[in-house]
Amino acid sequence: MTKKVAFQGVSGAYSEEAILEYFGKDIDRIACNTLEEVFLKVENGEAEFGMLPVENAATGSVARSYELMMDFDLTIFAEVILRVRHMLMANPGIKTSALKRTRSHPQALAQCQRYLTRHKLEPEPAFDTAGSARDLAANPDKTTSVIASALCAELYGLQILDKDIEDFPFNYTRFFLLSKEEAPLAQRNKTSLVFSTPHKPGGLFECLGEFAKRNINLTKIESRPRLNKPWQYIFYLDFEGHSKEIKVEAAILGLLRRSSFVKLLGSYQAATTPFSVEKNNNISEHKVEK
Amino acid sequence: MTKKVAFQGVSGAYSEEAILEYFGKDIDRIACNTLEEVFLKVENGEAEFGMLPVENAATGSVARSYELMMDFDLTIFAEVILRVRHMLMANPGIKTSALKRTRSHPQALAQCQRYLTRHKLEPEPAFDTAGSARDLAANPDKTTSVIASALCAELYGLQILDKDIEDFPFNYTRFFLLSKEEAPLAQRNKTSLVFSTPHKPGGLFECLGEFAKRNINLTKIESRPRLNKPWQYIFYLDFEGHSKEIKVEAAILGLLRRSSFVKLLGSYQAATTPFSVEKNNNISEHKVEK
Repeated sequence: MTKKVAFQGVSGAYSEEAILEYFGKDIDRIACNTLEEVFLKVENGEAEFGMLPVENAATGSVARSYELMMDFDLTIFAEVILRVRHMLMANPGIKTSALKRTRSHPQALAQCQRYLTRHKLEPEPAFDTAGSARDLAANPDKTTSVIASALCAELYGLQILDKDIEDFPFNYTRFFLLSKEEAPLAQRNKTSLVFSTPHKPGGLFECLGEFAKRNINLTKIESRPRLNKPWQYIFYLDFEGHSKEIKVEAAILGLLRRSSFVKLLGSYQAATTPFSVEKNNNISEHKVEK
Repeated sequence: MTKKVAFQGVSGAYSEEAILEYFGKDIDRIACNTLEEVFLKVENGEAEFGMLPVENAATGSVARSYELMMDFDLTIFAEVILRVRHMLMANPGIKTSALKRTRSHPQALAQCQRYLTRHKLEPEPAFDTAGSARDLAANPDKTTSVIASALCAELYGLQILDKDIEDFPFNYTRFFLLSKEEAPLAQRNKTSLVFSTPHKPGGLFECLGEFAKRNINLTKIESRPRLNKPWQYIFYLDFEGHSKEIKVEAAILGLLRRSSFVKLLGSYQAATTPFSVEKNNNISEHKVEK
């Protein structure tokens, strides 16, 4: 039986592209209205996995996703990094010269602002990228284009008129693939957790010392104020290694002794991508200088 | 002469509300199309100050704002914390029962989703909250409402039909007030800076040690991958104290010796708000449990 993966958004959303990037085409995708629904479907077994956006190169961490990971007890099975590529598309047979306007989510429109100005396309706001594509397919129009994923063009039978039209190509989204089951041990693992420290000078420092003294490399740290919870600051931490390695176990135990709470989010195979920290981070189009 | 403060957005945007919260009404506000324009206007002297959103309780840090603070050499003169209150408004004299739809930015619509469902109001996407208010005032409609700030209702002559309609009231935005001049020394100061460390185990830890060993309290830390720059990771750091205090100076010097670069963003009076870390953080509506 084909596995089922839940995601938030309309069919063709970038979260669905992330599912295809990870699993290939032979996978059932379940579109959900909210991120919470994604968690619920995995929890109650309607889906084996959920694809959750957690971080975007342009907009930072998705706070709501981290809140939900705190509230539910799912595990990170894998991380997936998707380069978000905005495509200009229209109904089949439409000429670019006939276009007058472009519909999409305001953020996608903003990311392609220079392109739209250059091509004299009037931006028109919509709820989301994929919904714009779906609606244009349902109500064809000779003068209207949309900005959405390549997957949308395929799903809704629209024609891609121009590729990668975003003004800044450094647009990556990081996803966590959520599951009730733990991932098998991989060659290069990462672990994610959330913790809170008592607010005193050096509190965070002592916690990070548990990792530093064991030579464990941190790959992400972020503090967040928590306004509706009994603690005031929480930290999101990612580091290299698996929670079943002896030195990682020792670091987590040390952290637990120094912090108000620790919630393990999972250990998973590290993606070899722009967000991971490789010594030779060779991104074809945008090579990182040393 | 009245001071001029630049902000990004249409008149009535929440950034303009932040300006009024900090300065009161006797201040000239300059609306800009982009965040970059805000920096340029302060840099070239068209405005004394710029109001920059840097962090939101719901959506996290504004990556673009931090990028611009890296690219420009302005100073943080103050921090301002604004509780974002969404108001439902319509043309004057309209009855709530006649309303059929509500226009606003998709994010504002999403934040008021339960309210709109409960009141059977069809959400309609728009570019921004303030622009929706401006446009409704220009083209009155008996069945249309918008979600925007109280300031919008005042500026555009719309009538507020319901207050604070957001589903989750913990919606705060943190702003930096930017200037070319440094702020005077206050009683409780905070300092913000950006730095980068060589990526090795314990690299960040050693940097933070410069603060811990001097009993300097951190109030924010965030790592960000940098894809289009010669370094790979940068950190945003906020801590208590002024860069002219001796122990803070020593910590910054220590940091500078251990890191690839340090950019001071400014020392400023700490706001007494939900984002600051007070032992008795008494927020009237939403008291933080101990």
